[in-house]
Amino acid sequence: MRAATIRDRELHVLEHPDPEPGAGEVLIRVTAAGLNGADMHQLRGRYPAPPGVPPDIPGLELAGEVAARGHRAERFSVGDRVMGIVAGGAQAELAIVHERQLMAVPEALSWEEAGGLPEVFTTAHDAIVTQAGLKPGEHLLVHGGAGGVGTAAIQLGHVLGAKVTATVRNPELRDGVAAFGAEVIEPEGFGAHGPFDVILELVGAPNLAENLAALATLGRIAVIGIGGGAKGELNLGIMLAKRLRIFGSTLRPRPLEEKALTARALERSVLPFFADGRLKVPIAATYPLDQVAEAYAHFTAGGKLGKIILLML
Amino acid sequence: MRAATIRDRELHVLEHPDPEPGAGEVLIRVTAAGLNGADMHQLRGRYPAPPGVPPDIPGLELAGEVAARGHRAERFSVGDRVMGIVAGGAQAELAIVHERQLMAVPEALSWEEAGGLPEVFTTAHDAIVTQAGLKPGEHLLVHGGAGGVGTAAIQLGHVLGAKVTATVRNPELRDGVAAFGAEVIEPEGFGAHGPFDVILELVGAPNLAENLAALATLGRIAVIGIGGGAKGELNLGIMLAKRLRIFGSTLRPRPLEEKALTARALERSVLPFFADGRLKVPIAATYPLDQVAEAYAHFTAGGKLGKIILLML
Repeated sequence: MRAATIRDRELHVLEHPDPEPGAGEVLIRVTAAGLNGADMHQLRGRYPAPPGVPPDIPGLELAGEVAARGHRAERFSVGDRVMGIVAGGAQAELAIVHERQLMAVPEALSWEEAGGLPEVFTTAHDAIVTQAGLKPGEHLLVHGGAGGVGTAAIQLGHVLGAKVTATVRNPELRDGVAAFGAEVIEPEGFGAHGPFDVILELVGAPNLAENLAALATLGRIAVIGIGGGAKGELNLGIMLAKRLRIFGSTLRPRPLEEKALTARALERSVLPFFADGRLKVPIAATYPLDQVAEAYAHFTAGGKLGKIILLML
Repeated sequence: MRAATIRDRELHVLEHPDPEPGAGEVLIRVTAAGLNGADMHQLRGRYPAPPGVPPDIPGLELAGEVAARGHRAERFSVGDRVMGIVAGGAQAELAIVHERQLMAVPEALSWEEAGGLPEVFTTAHDAIVTQAGLKPGEHLLVHGGAGGVGTAAIQLGHVLGAKVTATVRNPELRDGVAAFGAEVIEPEGFGAHGPFDVILELVGAPNLAENLAALATLGRIAVIGIGGGAKGELNLGIMLAKRLRIFGSTLRPRPLEEKALTARALERSVLPFFADGRLKVPIAATYPLDQVAEAYAHFTAGGKLGKIILLML
């Protein structure tokens, strides 16, 4: 099979042996695989793949057709349309995924949409709903609302009946982000738009002090991105007085059983809203596998709104 | 009625009008009321009573007999032995408490034990079990294990089947704390005794960096004391990589419905272990109400192991 391959911090398309599914696993003929920020970190050598994953093939999400089933893999049939998160290796013509980690692709979704859905919607739903417990009527702040996870979180918050505010640095993207259901504000002075019940932190430590000040009693901060800085001063006195909660979260290092739970949560609480059009996977651009380097360059350049998807069709 | 009363940051015993129970409330003839760190803060003017509470009568926990019942207060009968946490006003001959906030005193407990149980066991159980979700086989670290909440947390962790480690600064108290079921260590270099799954932080920010380093994946820090300092550097990168959780917690400002839930949790999961002797309320000293100033001085002097209780009998 051919796969996007990292060699000396550069991307190539190289031949690899076809993978073979083990017990409970499914071989997938990948049709579409989205790019994510973590792929950029991996390319730069800062986010190595965990054990058990092809170390040089990037890609954390995919959609495709079931091509073969391993021993006791009975959840799907050959030819079924499936999608899911993986710990690496998605940007290839073939990939192996445990059947419990996969979801059926809703009919309403195209291949490129399905290939760009799993990572950002799983990350956003797990952080703001499963872990932070966002409830209807609460006020959600999304820091970094123009990114893939940001737009997913805004849509999820909106569908859930929360009030959603999002910070967006690039003025050209603000109208587009607002269309997903958020009041869009500048990052500077965001605290004046609170109080917030849940803050999805995609930027990092620079927001920490103002986040604490802007949270309501029993407020929660989900930290899933620290591109803007990792270390900041934490005032435990405010944490105590308002009974606040801060947690960090990543998907990639989780064991199969935890990833499978996120797939069940998406099937139950998120995928139905794609069928009725209330949730969308915005697509900024698609590239054939051969142009993987161009796809990454587009991602890194910023200024886009929506996912960048590799197509293997 | 007579009550411990704060005037110009000094303690007196003064006459007050007898309080009258409203709907759902119970008038309690207080027999015993424990002292807590928060009382010391209130005496120094740093922790004012919340609205609806006698502003000048300290005391966050009490035990006593039901003396009268307000309209529709039917959970207890006149003469019943009850105990509970209150937002203030416990160190008096009479006090008003909503019936949903009260618990029946187990037969095995004396008045002084019952008067010193509610605040520390509610705080500890709510923080490490209800909120941090401590499970059998996990490793609990208690920072400040010699205090009232510390010894309660050690005992609860031990009964739950967790491995318990506790830091104790005063060498003279270490053997006594160890007898509650903890491995007792010096505060310096505590991280070498990890990894920990749950850390109960009764000291504050100075431990923050080492706490993060010493936690296992999915570890939790419950911050309920910041006497050692409120502000410290938080490394969100570690929070993310290990998916850690930090929360701050206090009991006093919670509304009735939340306090009532903590009473139900204690009735179900904590009080049965006093009947069989697996949990104990250690008593350092008792004082009659007239000697309230001496009782506070004893508390402030430190070096004790166990509760200091005011007796109104």
